[in-house]
Amino acid sequence: LSTPALVIDAGALERNLATMATARPGARLRPHVKAHKCTALAREQYRHGHHGFTCATVREVEGMVAAGLGDDLLLANEVVDTTRLARLGALLDRARITVAVDSEATIDAAARAGLDEVLVDVNVGLPRCGCAPEAAGELAELARARGLTVRGVMGYEGHVVGLADRDTRAEQLRVCLERLHAAHRLVGGELVSAGGTGTYDLHDDRTEVQAGSYALMDTAYAGLGLPFEYAARVVATVISVSSGFAVGDAGLKAFGMDHGNPTVEGGRLWFCSDEHTTFTPEHPVVAGQRITMLPAHIDPTMTLHERAHLVDADGHVLEVWPIDLRGW
Amino acid sequence: LSTPALVIDAGALERNLATMATARPGARLRPHVKAHKCTALAREQYRHGHHGFTCATVREVEGMVAAGLGDDLLLANEVVDTTRLARLGALLDRARITVAVDSEATIDAAARAGLDEVLVDVNVGLPRCGCAPEAAGELAELARARGLTVRGVMGYEGHVVGLADRDTRAEQLRVCLERLHAAHRLVGGELVSAGGTGTYDLHDDRTEVQAGSYALMDTAYAGLGLPFEYAARVVATVISVSSGFAVGDAGLKAFGMDHGNPTVEGGRLWFCSDEHTTFTPEHPVVAGQRITMLPAHIDPTMTLHERAHLVDADGHVLEVWPIDLRGW
Repeated sequence: LSTPALVIDAGALERNLATMATARPGARLRPHVKAHKCTALAREQYRHGHHGFTCATVREVEGMVAAGLGDDLLLANEVVDTTRLARLGALLDRARITVAVDSEATIDAAARAGLDEVLVDVNVGLPRCGCAPEAAGELAELARARGLTVRGVMGYEGHVVGLADRDTRAEQLRVCLERLHAAHRLVGGELVSAGGTGTYDLHDDRTEVQAGSYALMDTAYAGLGLPFEYAARVVATVISVSSGFAVGDAGLKAFGMDHGNPTVEGGRLWFCSDEHTTFTPEHPVVAGQRITMLPAHIDPTMTLHERAHLVDADGHVLEVWPIDLRGW
Repeated sequence: LSTPALVIDAGALERNLATMATARPGARLRPHVKAHKCTALAREQYRHGHHGFTCATVREVEGMVAAGLGDDLLLANEVVDTTRLARLGALLDRARITVAVDSEATIDAAARAGLDEVLVDVNVGLPRCGCAPEAAGELAELARARGLTVRGVMGYEGHVVGLADRDTRAEQLRVCLERLHAAHRLVGGELVSAGGTGTYDLHDDRTEVQAGSYALMDTAYAGLGLPFEYAARVVATVISVSSGFAVGDAGLKAFGMDHGNPTVEGGRLWFCSDEHTTFTPEHPVVAGQRITMLPAHIDPTMTLHERAHLVDADGHVLEVWPIDLRGW
């Protein structure tokens, strides 16, 4: 292994996927590929019974279609770039693609791009995309008038999924779902799409949950007491040892840093530089020795790596998976 | 332009490069390519008279050699992976490559890889790589005993380059340089390599300065009152507009976040999500409109983009530059 290297523990991944597939079988989960950006991992989720996927970018949709995983792809994001949307329109002969809309501009872009199915994105409390719940019916009518099929509604409670206390998450989610179901009554359609790893078991069976991080996990989600294990780590090599600290060769360019520093297993992290992490090891280390680090936020960490190494319990590399859905 | 898109203002870049080349002409600057990871940009620095470059990774060195920019490359980082170092050893017939060493292990790796020139990396106060100044002479002897040429010393004052007050930077730098020159007296050789954008004009002519961020700049370095302009921005498209805020399609995956949030020009940023930035625009915006954002830390931002678009003052794309030194 050349370091820094992203490794995925095959056993932990399998247990995470199985735990989720038991809790939310089949279409009750629409795994979000933005969390891993890896079609090989998506294929494992497919094998566990989830045949519909959530995407955040046009490239993710294109990559999933190219990988033969286009049964039912939801682009859960607004796009007004008709050139790129038209590329998706051209894929409809071999994939089912639904895009989120929250305005006349996004409906117009979808219709002009030759797409045929949309979901109305509803703001359920997170100040981001999505129309007001009371405006959802009018947008659905507008979309239908443009010849689009409206499959239902989506609404992401991103301000709730990370709350530490489960009861608080459940209570806040109820408020969000009131908004989403109110919008759904106005819109119609078979789909109510929402949720993430932090609320996967708080949604009832009316919701298809868009969780992604559960597969690999990170230290932020680990604070929520969920039944998912760390499956992704970054392996670094100790390249320098001084009195009281040592340095590993993975830094800011190997970790999404928005949720804070990664965690050094068997050490106390001081700080990350572009290509280095300075830490105090629990036990003496020597140059050349390997250390493992846990990302604080898995999604932006994955996008920094070209490949993931699937490893067994002894650390042997079983497969190398390209992180093939990166970029735009 | 498909967004998010990294754009480089050709005029601002040219002025930044010219300002630096005037202050530290020729070999007084060894531009650090880790800040931009782009051989096309390095070629502009070469054109401004700097023919030696600093690299942080083996891949950066390999890419610079492949681009024909291998006159004098310094890998200013410790590497104990002899397989990768041997790849550099195999390039010595068409490039000059010097690697940093700070221990017996790194000297052994360099010698076994068939490399022939090293610099002794000295800890000048930043707790990261580098030997103690008083140990530098012994390491140099060890390297020479292994048949390596020792070209001098390097020491990066990373704890000083970002200090807001210039006098404080100058004062702290003096302490670092005492250590570095003490080590140099023990080691010998023609090179004293150190510094960064924040200290580029505080070093005297004995130092070759390893600055990189000056070319493109970021909001962190802009706080230091340096004569360099913002030359890099991320262009985003407004994809959703609500009462009181709007959303752009560039988020955590388009910006290095370790120095904090990017800055929305013409708006007040609320927060970044993976693929979104929620902000309040100063003037009303509509879906489809473009916004520009300034990164807080340029180095990890560059590594997230596949290409940079060189644009003129009217925003027309002059050239597309691959960010070809990314990854490991």
